[in-house]
Amino acid sequence: MIPSVNETHDPNLQSWIESANDGKTDFPIQNLPYCVFKHEGTKETPRVGVAIGDRILDLAACQRGGLFDGNEKNAGEACLSASLNALMALGPEDWSALRKRLSTLLRIDSRDYRSAKTILADSLLPINSAKLYVPAEIGDYTDFYASIYHATNVGKMFRPDQPLLPNYKYVPIGYHGRSSSIVQSGTTIVHPSGQIKREKDERPIVAESEQLDYELELGCYIGGGNKLSEPIPIAKAEDNMFGLCLLNDWSARDIQRWEYQPLGPFLAKNFATTVSPWVVTMEALAPFRAAAFRRPAGDPKPLPYLSSDENTKKGGLKIALDVFIKSKLMRAEWHQPVHLSTSNSSDLYWTFAQMVAHHTGNGCNLRPGDLLGSGTISGKDKKSFGCLLELTGGGKSPVKLSSGELRSFLQDGDEVIF
Amino acid sequence: MIPSVNETHDPNLQSWIESANDGKTDFPIQNLPYCVFKHEGTKETPRVGVAIGDRILDLAACQRGGLFDGNEKNAGEACLSASLNALMALGPEDWSALRKRLSTLLRIDSRDYRSAKTILADSLLPINSAKLYVPAEIGDYTDFYASIYHATNVGKMFRPDQPLLPNYKYVPIGYHGRSSSIVQSGTTIVHPSGQIKREKDERPIVAESEQLDYELELGCYIGGGNKLSEPIPIAKAEDNMFGLCLLNDWSARDIQRWEYQPLGPFLAKNFATTVSPWVVTMEALAPFRAAAFRRPAGDPKPLPYLSSDENTKKGGLKIALDVFIKSKLMRAEWHQPVHLSTSNSSDLYWTFAQMVAHHTGNGCNLRPGDLLGSGTISGKDKKSFGCLLELTGGGKSPVKLSSGELRSFLQDGDEVIF
Repeated sequence: MIPSVNETHDPNLQSWIESANDGKTDFPIQNLPYCVFKHEGTKETPRVGVAIGDRILDLAACQRGGLFDGNEKNAGEACLSASLNALMALGPEDWSALRKRLSTLLRIDSRDYRSAKTILADSLLPINSAKLYVPAEIGDYTDFYASIYHATNVGKMFRPDQPLLPNYKYVPIGYHGRSSSIVQSGTTIVHPSGQIKREKDERPIVAESEQLDYELELGCYIGGGNKLSEPIPIAKAEDNMFGLCLLNDWSARDIQRWEYQPLGPFLAKNFATTVSPWVVTMEALAPFRAAAFRRPAGDPKPLPYLSSDENTKKGGLKIALDVFIKSKLMRAEWHQPVHLSTSNSSDLYWTFAQMVAHHTGNGCNLRPGDLLGSGTISGKDKKSFGCLLELTGGGKSPVKLSSGELRSFLQDGDEVIF
Repeated sequence: MIPSVNETHDPNLQSWIESANDGKTDFPIQNLPYCVFKHEGTKETPRVGVAIGDRILDLAACQRGGLFDGNEKNAGEACLSASLNALMALGPEDWSALRKRLSTLLRIDSRDYRSAKTILADSLLPINSAKLYVPAEIGDYTDFYASIYHATNVGKMFRPDQPLLPNYKYVPIGYHGRSSSIVQSGTTIVHPSGQIKREKDERPIVAESEQLDYELELGCYIGGGNKLSEPIPIAKAEDNMFGLCLLNDWSARDIQRWEYQPLGPFLAKNFATTVSPWVVTMEALAPFRAAAFRRPAGDPKPLPYLSSDENTKKGGLKIALDVFIKSKLMRAEWHQPVHLSTSNSSDLYWTFAQMVAHHTGNGCNLRPGDLLGSGTISGKDKKSFGCLLELTGGGKSPVKLSSGELRSFLQDGDEVIF
């Protein structure tokens, strides 16, 4: 049970926190994404918060102040934790109860506000005075390959004879990624070295990657989860999805090309994966639901374990995703970031619900806090290609920046903004 | 610094625990493998123990009894934990100090024994009255592919045109596995289902795997570890290896064949991985050191980051590994397990030290408790093939059991014993 659009999504809702109402903020009262934070520069224990306008509401403080004593009791208690895992371990009813309570407390006409005023006021801090963390202990991280456009484009470069393999339209292709190297947005990524086999050379050399790339992805945090050997049916898949984040699957293409067969990418990817500090709940995304990918005539229907009436009705998500870049020189010259592409999650061939059903179809257990990546989100046209490998045709057609610089792949000092 | 053979390895050492001295036990005083245990059927907190003969010595109880107040102080404190991670987070000096102290306390001529007698006696329990656990919280699990014989045999079946890919002799090929589904030896594995594409069929079906297999591997638990972006040089690799376990990488070959391209095995493997409860420390294995794999003439030398004089001197490990099988019918008829193969770790093309140096070469961080699998350990001859896929030539030449049954792949009720 994922709630459909309800009173918490009302576009006319306003908050008594004015910065939430300017129509430009990423954090209006309809969103309420979770984070784990502390006051920058202190030795405080990290705890759960929710973004509203330019503030974070400290949910641990609210809980201790007794503001969560209704249906949201369980969820409120989980906010005392130093990660979102305890909240994720609950289920849609608890998640929904806390969202409703927060919406009520924060709205401009809230009756609760008067009685809770002191506690709420004491529980707010400016986002820019907070240190934000990777918001969950991520036990296992799995990366999928759900954009058929990305799979085809990359396939053309890695396997010109057979860009899209025969399993693609049946299997939501995925592989396990590295948990230990998942870092918080803003973390500097150190340029990786590795084995690279240049075409002209007979043997590989060890060198810094010359083909460092980003990959624009959405991440889905698992909530609930399943016991080992008990698959999650597709109809229940969304009950086990807590919320989404932005995810950058940094990739070293030259390392990848040499190492990836037969067992998949390894050192080309595991040097770092960046996630956003904010987790937007599935409920908050209700207004962004849209029909799932429309398979072209001739494509096979999803196998029964990847399809249910209810799930088809829920469909996928229509979320526009932009990529910008800013080089060191651009920062020095005070340039605005250059826009590289706009993708949309509606272009994914597989939904996260299908990924969850597939992942657990053999009995593999998902735990609260586990992270699924969508794979690079690319659309049909160049304007919607979600990585430089695709945008520059493998480096052959570099992108020109506002500083006059060219980019085939990333250079030291570049900043990538999703 | 990994200590070489020292007084704790003396083959003449005997323990005052008589079952350690019978020459048949896996747990003589020279071994002392760690585990995490509690008394079966109680609500005790799991804690760290060490096997000696048919007993477990409760190291938390020894610590509380004040038996670890010398150089082994740090290691002793770490034994109060409910997993081996705290002990693994220390380093070779602490590990060595605890081993030396345990050896002293347990040997027959121990002077310490008299003073420590009551505490030691109260800290022993029979292994068969203990519940044993996966001994570490495994953050990330990586599986390598270090047997060139296995890679060649499997390659022949999956890619007859190119069994061994050109990267194999340069890159210690590995991929990320699933942490959540790692289970304790003895855990029943539920038969997985998944997408299978039979040759005769145009489309895949969803069915129970008909090609369920085991893979005989050694696992290496990481101790120490490295910070993100700080590779572990090959000369320091062994300082970051705590010890070894047995590992069974259960595999569904029919699922694997259909799903594994282009990103590697996923559902074919992640339904379960079994590890032994015992972790044999690298120090305990000092008498089993042997020259690393001798590369045939014409094979390239390992690249510099995978080679050091010191490391070449340390070499690899010579450990004989047997596989047995026992079917349901064999159990009913009181048969002994049937011996399937004997592999040896000296047949691995890459050492664990090389795997550690490679894994971190791009800056990827390893954490204490992380697990590296060697990949299936196969030798040159059929007698040393470490999985049924190889032993039965892809199922074409079934193995005959003592019950008269044939096995191309595993059947429900089969028990696999390493």
